[in-house]
Amino acid sequence: MAEKPSRGLADVVAASTALSDIDGRAGRLSYRGYDIHQLAGAASFEEIAYLLQRGAPPSRAELAGYREELAAGRATGALAAASLPAVARAQGPMAALRGLVSLAAADDPDAASNQPGPNQRKAARLTAQQPILIAAYEAERTGRAAPRADPELGLAANFLLQVTGQRPGPRTAEIFDTCLVLHADHTMNASTFAARVCAATLADMHSAVVAALGTLSGPLHGGANEQVMRGLEAIRNSAAGDPVDAVGDQVAARLRQGEKVMGFGHRVYKTEDPRATHLRRMSEELAGQGDDTYYRMSRRMEEVVLAEKGLYPNVDFYAATVYHYLGIPTDLFTPVFSASRMAGWTAHIIEQHADNRLIRPDSEYIGEHDLTWVPLDQR
Amino acid sequence: MAEKPSRGLADVVAASTALSDIDGRAGRLSYRGYDIHQLAGAASFEEIAYLLQRGAPPSRAELAGYREELAAGRATGALAAASLPAVARAQGPMAALRGLVSLAAADDPDAASNQPGPNQRKAARLTAQQPILIAAYEAERTGRAAPRADPELGLAANFLLQVTGQRPGPRTAEIFDTCLVLHADHTMNASTFAARVCAATLADMHSAVVAALGTLSGPLHGGANEQVMRGLEAIRNSAAGDPVDAVGDQVAARLRQGEKVMGFGHRVYKTEDPRATHLRRMSEELAGQGDDTYYRMSRRMEEVVLAEKGLYPNVDFYAATVYHYLGIPTDLFTPVFSASRMAGWTAHIIEQHADNRLIRPDSEYIGEHDLTWVPLDQR
Repeated sequence: MAEKPSRGLADVVAASTALSDIDGRAGRLSYRGYDIHQLAGAASFEEIAYLLQRGAPPSRAELAGYREELAAGRATGALAAASLPAVARAQGPMAALRGLVSLAAADDPDAASNQPGPNQRKAARLTAQQPILIAAYEAERTGRAAPRADPELGLAANFLLQVTGQRPGPRTAEIFDTCLVLHADHTMNASTFAARVCAATLADMHSAVVAALGTLSGPLHGGANEQVMRGLEAIRNSAAGDPVDAVGDQVAARLRQGEKVMGFGHRVYKTEDPRATHLRRMSEELAGQGDDTYYRMSRRMEEVVLAEKGLYPNVDFYAATVYHYLGIPTDLFTPVFSASRMAGWTAHIIEQHADNRLIRPDSEYIGEHDLTWVPLDQR
Repeated sequence: MAEKPSRGLADVVAASTALSDIDGRAGRLSYRGYDIHQLAGAASFEEIAYLLQRGAPPSRAELAGYREELAAGRATGALAAASLPAVARAQGPMAALRGLVSLAAADDPDAASNQPGPNQRKAARLTAQQPILIAAYEAERTGRAAPRADPELGLAANFLLQVTGQRPGPRTAEIFDTCLVLHADHTMNASTFAARVCAATLADMHSAVVAALGTLSGPLHGGANEQVMRGLEAIRNSAAGDPVDAVGDQVAARLRQGEKVMGFGHRVYKTEDPRATHLRRMSEELAGQGDDTYYRMSRRMEEVVLAEKGLYPNVDFYAATVYHYLGIPTDLFTPVFSASRMAGWTAHIIEQHADNRLIRPDSEYIGEHDLTWVPLDQR
C-alpha cells in the first residue's frame, strides 16, 4: 500500500542508472565511474557525450567516427528551419527550443524507433543539433548570419564561434569545452527525471527531450545561472561606490531579511559542488584577461553567503560569470546549458528504453469525499 | 538516506492532490469528491473542466462565463497556424500536437505567468484550443476545411463536428461528451506526473502540457486505444469465418503463448475500471445503430481474457470501439483523449504551482566505481 508522501520525492530512489553518481557529503560527481575532477580539462565534450551515450570512452577511431556523425548532424532539419524566423521573433529562447526540437523530429529518419541503434544515432544528432538551433535562433533575432562551422574545430569551439560570431582562441575554446563537460549529466535532476518519466511510456527520444527542455526552462532548475548574472549586473549598475563592496553589503542585508540568493546551496551537495571548483578557477582565469569586476564581486558574494548562511556556491554561480566572459548573451545561458545536458538526457533515455518500466507513482488524496452532484438546473 | 529503489515508483506517493481519487479495490474513481458514476451522463465536459480547474461545480452564471472563455479560446494562434500545414504534412498527430501547443504559447498573453488567475485563463484556453488544433490538423491532411464551430453546440458536439465533418445528433454528442468526462483526470498517471515534474521547476503551463503530450504519446500510456482498434481490424479483415469466433480463438491462442493483449489490466484497478463500465454500455448503444461486429468481437475478447487471465478491460478497451463508431479516425484516438485529459493536466499544473516544491528524486547508481581516465593519445 502507499505510504505517506515524500514531498518532492527527496531521498526516494526513482530509477537505477550507470551514468552518473553523486556523493553529496564528499562533494564528488562521477560519470560512468570517472571522477569529474579527472575529466575537467582532460576530456573533450565529444568524448564525454560518447562515454555517456555509448557506455565507455571512445578509442581514437571511435571518436573520429562519432565526430563524423556529429558533423553530419549539424542541421536544424527542414521543418524547424521553416519555422525558425517566426519562432525567433515570437518566443524566448527556451520556449523556442522546446518547439524547434519537436519540429526537428520530422527530419530525423530514426525518430520513431526506440531501439538501441536508432537511439544512439538520434542522441548524436540531437547533441550536434542543439548548438546549431541556438546559434540559428541568435542569428535570426540579431539579424546577422551565424558563421559556418569550421571542420577543423571541435564542438565547443564551433558552438562559441556560431553563437557569438567570434572565433575563440584555443584556450577560450578549451574553457568552454570544460564547461560543457561539467554540465553533461547530474543523476536524477528534474529535467532528466522528466525525460525518463516520458521515455518510460515508450515515448520516443524527441518527446522525452522536449519534456526535459520544458522542465529545464523553470527558474528553480535552469534559470539560476541567468538570475545570478542579472543580479550581479543590477548591483554593479546601481552601485554608487565600489561594486565589490556594494555586493557584500547588499547580499548581507538581503540574507538578514530572509531572502534567498540565487546560485548557492543544493539539495544533494552538503559541501562545495565539485563543478563549482572548476568554474571558479575558469572564471578567475577569464577575468584576468580583462575587466575582473564580476569575478571579484562573485568572490565577495561567496564569502558573505558562506559566513552568513554556511552555503556553498552551486554549479550555476560561477557558470554565470564564465559564460558572461565567454561572450554568451545572458538569456542564452540556459539554452547553452541545455546543449551540454543533451548528452546526459539522451543517455538517460537510451538507458530507460533499454530496461523499461512505466513510471507511475501514487498520489495522496487530500480533497473531499462522497459529495453529491447537483444537476445544473438545480444549482 | 536513499532507500532501495521502487521500480516505476509503484506505491510511492509523489504528490498530494484534491483533484481525483481512485479506490483500486472497489473500482471507484472520483473527481473532487464526486463519484464518476454520478457524473457520467449527468455532467457536461465543460462542467467537469471547470470543477477540476476552478475547484467546485460552476453555478449557471459561472458556467456561462466559462463557456464564453472557451469560445474566445477556440483558436490555434498565429504562430501555430503558420506552421500547421507543414507540420501536418511532416508529422504524425501526437508529434504535431507536441510542437503546435509549444508554438501556440507565443499567442497566449498569459504564457509567462504561473499565478492563479493567468493559470486559470490559460487552462480554459488550452482546453478550448486542443480540439481546434486536432480538427485543423485533420483538415490539413485530408484537404477538406473543418466546419466552423456552431455557437449553439457544446464543446463535445463542436469537437465531433469539426473533426469528422459531420454534425452529430444530440444523443451522439451526449455520448462523446460522456467520453470526455470519463477521460478528464486520473490521479498520477504518467503524463500528469510528467506535467507536475515539469511545473515543479516553476516552468510555465505550456511547457508542462507539452511534456504531458510527449509522455502520452508513448504506447504504454496513450496509444493503447489505437492498438485495441487496430487489433480488432486486423482480426476482422483476416478472419475466414465469423470474426467473433476468430477473435476468441486468436486471443486465447495468444494468451496461452504468453503474449499480452492491449486494453486489459491496470496497475491501480484490481477489479473493473469504472470508466470501462460506461464505455461498454455506450459502445453497445452505438453498435446497435449499425454494424455491431466490433462490439460483439470486443465482448468475446473480454470473456476470453477474463476466463484465461482474470483481467478486466481498462479504459482503453471500449473507448476504442466507441471512438470508432463516432467516426473518429483511429490515429486520432490518442489526440482526442488528450483533449479530454487537458482538463486534468491543466488542473494539476495549477495545483502544483499553488503549493510548489521541486520534484527531484534520487537514483541508485549501478555502474562502475573509481575508474582512471586514460587520455585519448594513450588509448
